[in-house]
Amino acid sequence: MAHFQARIYVTLRPSVLDPAGVAVCSGLHQLGYEAVESVRIGKYIEVALDAADQGDAETQLDQMCDRLLANPVIENYRFELNELAST
Amino acid sequence: MAHFQARIYVTLRPSVLDPAGVAVCSGLHQLGYEAVESVRIGKYIEVALDAADQGDAETQLDQMCDRLLANPVIENYRFELNELAST
Repeated sequence: MAHFQARIYVTLRPSVLDPAGVAVCSGLHQLGYEAVESVRIGKYIEVALDAADQGDAETQLDQMCDRLLANPVIENYRFELNELAST
Repeated sequence: MAHFQARIYVTLRPSVLDPAGVAVCSGLHQLGYEAVESVRIGKYIEVALDAADQGDAETQLDQMCDRLLANPVIENYRFELNELAST
């Protein structure tokens, strides 16, 4: 059994409108940052989990993202996996 | 003038409770992913901007994070900066 730390990035698909990002972009313009061209907002999720090995952890994380963490219809996800310790 | 793409990660400080993360952790347990130990949720923000050079872009991004994108009282942020094109 090994202990893993995953960093998951969930982003809206490029074709999906991001009203929150547009609002933040407009807010930055109002604060004087006119050089900002676009803003897209996503989620960043850190998950600590135990798994038999790297492959097992990746399989579990793919399922978690598809079932709960991301909405596959409008979002993409990717993750990085670090092994912290094995016992 | 150069064009930059920044990836900003905003996370709650480790000492700050994350009720949303606890709820997602509990949801994952209910879906059968008992091996998940903890979940922390943050924000992932992509910003496209123009700046004179790398240093100028970093200065602007630091200010944007402090003033709008992150709450420095309870959140940390870090960013990666990629130069896409210079004119």
